[in-house]
Amino acid sequence: MTISSIEIAQQADLWPITRVAEGLGIPEDVVVPYGRFKGKVALPYLASLADRRQGRLILMTAVSPTPAGEGKTTTTVGLGDALTRLGEKAMICLREPALGPVFGMKGGAAGGGYAQVVPMEDINLHFTGDFAAIGVATNLLAAMIDNHIHHGNALGIDVRRVSWRRVLDVNDRALRDIVAGLGGTGNGYPRETGFDIVVASEVMAIFCLATSLGDLKQRLGRIVVAYTRDRLPVRASDLNAHGAMAALLRDALAPNLVQTLEHTPAFVHGGPFANIAHGCNSLMATGSALRLADYVITEAGFGADLGAEKFVDILCRTSGLRPSAAVIVATVRAMKYHGGVAVADLATEDVPALERGLVNLERHIHIVREVFGLPCVVAINQRVEDAPAEIDALIAGAARLGVTAVPARHFTEGGAGAEDLARAVLAELNEGVDAGVSDLQFTYPDDASLWDKAKAIATKIYGAAGITASTAVRDQLKRLQQDGYGHLPVCIAKTQYSFSTDVALRGAPTGHHVDIREVRLAAGAEFVVLVCGTIMTMPGLPQVPAAESIDVTDDGRITGLF
Amino acid sequence: MTISSIEIAQQADLWPITRVAEGLGIPEDVVVPYGRFKGKVALPYLASLADRRQGRLILMTAVSPTPAGEGKTTTTVGLGDALTRLGEKAMICLREPALGPVFGMKGGAAGGGYAQVVPMEDINLHFTGDFAAIGVATNLLAAMIDNHIHHGNALGIDVRRVSWRRVLDVNDRALRDIVAGLGGTGNGYPRETGFDIVVASEVMAIFCLATSLGDLKQRLGRIVVAYTRDRLPVRASDLNAHGAMAALLRDALAPNLVQTLEHTPAFVHGGPFANIAHGCNSLMATGSALRLADYVITEAGFGADLGAEKFVDILCRTSGLRPSAAVIVATVRAMKYHGGVAVADLATEDVPALERGLVNLERHIHIVREVFGLPCVVAINQRVEDAPAEIDALIAGAARLGVTAVPARHFTEGGAGAEDLARAVLAELNEGVDAGVSDLQFTYPDDASLWDKAKAIATKIYGAAGITASTAVRDQLKRLQQDGYGHLPVCIAKTQYSFSTDVALRGAPTGHHVDIREVRLAAGAEFVVLVCGTIMTMPGLPQVPAAESIDVTDDGRITGLF
Repeated sequence: MTISSIEIAQQADLWPITRVAEGLGIPEDVVVPYGRFKGKVALPYLASLADRRQGRLILMTAVSPTPAGEGKTTTTVGLGDALTRLGEKAMICLREPALGPVFGMKGGAAGGGYAQVVPMEDINLHFTGDFAAIGVATNLLAAMIDNHIHHGNALGIDVRRVSWRRVLDVNDRALRDIVAGLGGTGNGYPRETGFDIVVASEVMAIFCLATSLGDLKQRLGRIVVAYTRDRLPVRASDLNAHGAMAALLRDALAPNLVQTLEHTPAFVHGGPFANIAHGCNSLMATGSALRLADYVITEAGFGADLGAEKFVDILCRTSGLRPSAAVIVATVRAMKYHGGVAVADLATEDVPALERGLVNLERHIHIVREVFGLPCVVAINQRVEDAPAEIDALIAGAARLGVTAVPARHFTEGGAGAEDLARAVLAELNEGVDAGVSDLQFTYPDDASLWDKAKAIATKIYGAAGITASTAVRDQLKRLQQDGYGHLPVCIAKTQYSFSTDVALRGAPTGHHVDIREVRLAAGAEFVVLVCGTIMTMPGLPQVPAAESIDVTDDGRITGLF
Repeated sequence: MTISSIEIAQQADLWPITRVAEGLGIPEDVVVPYGRFKGKVALPYLASLADRRQGRLILMTAVSPTPAGEGKTTTTVGLGDALTRLGEKAMICLREPALGPVFGMKGGAAGGGYAQVVPMEDINLHFTGDFAAIGVATNLLAAMIDNHIHHGNALGIDVRRVSWRRVLDVNDRALRDIVAGLGGTGNGYPRETGFDIVVASEVMAIFCLATSLGDLKQRLGRIVVAYTRDRLPVRASDLNAHGAMAALLRDALAPNLVQTLEHTPAFVHGGPFANIAHGCNSLMATGSALRLADYVITEAGFGADLGAEKFVDILCRTSGLRPSAAVIVATVRAMKYHGGVAVADLATEDVPALERGLVNLERHIHIVREVFGLPCVVAINQRVEDAPAEIDALIAGAARLGVTAVPARHFTEGGAGAEDLARAVLAELNEGVDAGVSDLQFTYPDDASLWDKAKAIATKIYGAAGITASTAVRDQLKRLQQDGYGHLPVCIAKTQYSFSTDVALRGAPTGHHVDIREVRLAAGAEFVVLVCGTIMTMPGLPQVPAAESIDVTDDGRITGLF
């Protein structure tokens, strides 16, 4: 008989959040409770920790994602619990689940099996309201733009050049492209626009990069929302919107403290898109966790080529965060997938296919170790169906590169199943060549041009031969250089399923070209988004949405999340 | 030197919410904290109080609203505090402020001066996330409708007859009328639709009428979202949406406990529009408060013709709530306005104009006392500028009808300023003819036709000669009768500024006709909305929105709310 993730979560013995906080030395009076098992840790308290010695930061990344799912979140939880079991003071940092996908395909995103953060229903549903606040702040700015135009347009906004979009935390394809402002003069000016999902908002990216409430407000003010007919930027501060937006986000900016099933403390805070934004939980959370624990595991989006690259080149570069090591999650299934096996056949033992697929893992190891200069361990997120020969082949493949690969069974066994992994990570941190003092390297220097930054990522990380772009895109980049944005890091939005821009190219393609189709300035988040391929910023619901199975009993028990 | 409402609120000495709960006999372990000063009282605990003896319910209503503002919320707070000061166990029930208007015109809606509920910034901003939950539930249903059509439309929904609209808690006129589903086949079918403000959603009305989580889910399932080509209704339950919607609303359904500046306990919960919905805070809140306190003051929307009528004919009728008395808030300025004085001249003493305007108060007294059969007191919400002769004239006017009118100065003096009012209310409750055992009368019987219900309200309450409607509207009403909805109460959506449908007709017009322009079935909320006049379900922002003045300091102090 199997037990579902939600049943495991509902049977969990949770500690009061103040007890979890106490374990980190956080006084009760700075924990703002949201129910008994969630709390926000007050910003002034966290600011007071600035001078504390920092713990070691472990970056959780993965091979290129596959439809089978790799389990980066569960491995983050499992490793955190294992470190706790080994007597270490550990903490994990995760992104908050977005409601849209929970009711669409995913049905939940708080880990799974015996490796979860809890209370899982709360975390998957509204949690502490952060995403709602980010949504309202984004939409208030949008309303103020159209309202400004309606009341005379003193700033001279070109209604064709309003780039700011509204957001909802619902998967709603019908809102991707709309015409708003219809119905007559009382409703403003008709114009084409659309909605994104909340996590795709620049406000979310800013929220996750802000170092303080003051920094948050300044960044919000710098958002470029539109251009005038003369192509001059119109900023949120020009509309006097940033103060109200920051007021709306004040409470949200404090990190959310929860616990794993085994009471390891977890900050679950923020969650920007990993394609058009940097895809990491909030700096406020990870930065604070390093002052509260000896080992902090933080999760980046997608594979090392996307999430880890942005973690390093955007977040670490601007914040000073320095990971001491990385864990790359790989699975037997993912390796077979990258070796060319069809999704339907992934359960069948196939060592030769797995061996072929190891090139994908090798590329990710290369990125982490050679490009970023980080010691790493491979976590094999093991399933009961995995054949011993397959596991052995995966371990051997990593060993050929001098990397330890460790099977981990946290999904079925909790932290106990990840103790070997934890020991390997500790060994890497404490007994490695550099004893864990990593000398983090960026993919490109600050002063490289935007073009050269993109080229460096494409060639060093994606294995591409080079980059291409239309004259229009090249002109846009030139203009951004001239306007003083050339020093910003770039954020490449491309498919996460391949190192190339072609989802069909599994494994580790080389020699391809990466075409930059579109450029978007994120002046508040302080990066330049380079869109390479089709990026969906508002998902749709599948034919049978997860929502149809989600329910609540008359006595309040949520069912259908997983 | 004057002190602003937000400064008063920020200087307040708040009690921990568990202490406020303790005063009501609520055990600490059923108070779900949201921060230290807000809490939700768990539904199972409230259900366990069902058999308790109920306190006396006092309905707070007002004369016809004017641009000067009457202060119904402050009077509710002031009367609650005064009753507390007199040693009574009192509690107040208010609606939650909507974010949209806070950032538009209002800048806040948690009372004012020394008559506020606190923490005012929290209550005015996201509070405990109820409105966000109602918004997501509404929008999830919308997305599931369009998704169903996109994936084959098995239910045969007529895309021209989708009545369900999306919502945001932002004043955004550009979203009133949109075309969605543009951009190609991947984005569904283009169709005309629009957004309302959250408070205008039927989900909000249902939320405020639900007697339990199970009842909430059943009502959500009954929502009619569209019609087929054969004019058959399509319900939320046909889309399997109601379970997920109820799951999203589970936590929100528990009432929010806060306190006044003087520590009187307050439920602030729900807030449906008072025109297209019934406009009262949640039944869950008011119904529970009656089991917790000896005197409960609950506020209805707009004047007695709209809010009190719906409170009686919709909420009391279906829930069994029975008020023992009503308080009608009147001001010197409102009376002068109804006497024909221009807004700019309202500060000038003008007893003759005030005398002329008393007809408005008289009509409201008539409605409350003669139509509903409720004992009543008039609360004169006094301003320092009011001339003594004006106050005297107002008192004398009420006295001619045998009603006590009492000046109250809670805005400047807190509960102490409303003690006279409280004594008058207690006298009415305990020494009146019927000793407070009111024999509540409805405006019409259940079994009257929808047409006759509307006619009864128009003639008995609005002083109209009758009602009119186009053939199309008459046919719609006939159809609803045939479809079995004839037993439902009606909810008239009309301007709050006049007893007629013409805002220019101040005072107490008679002999007018009320034209029903549109009929909307609220099958989940269980009433039939009759739209009489232009009703705005999505407000716009003014030329200079309140948002431009709202800000937060670097250390987290919110400014610009009022």
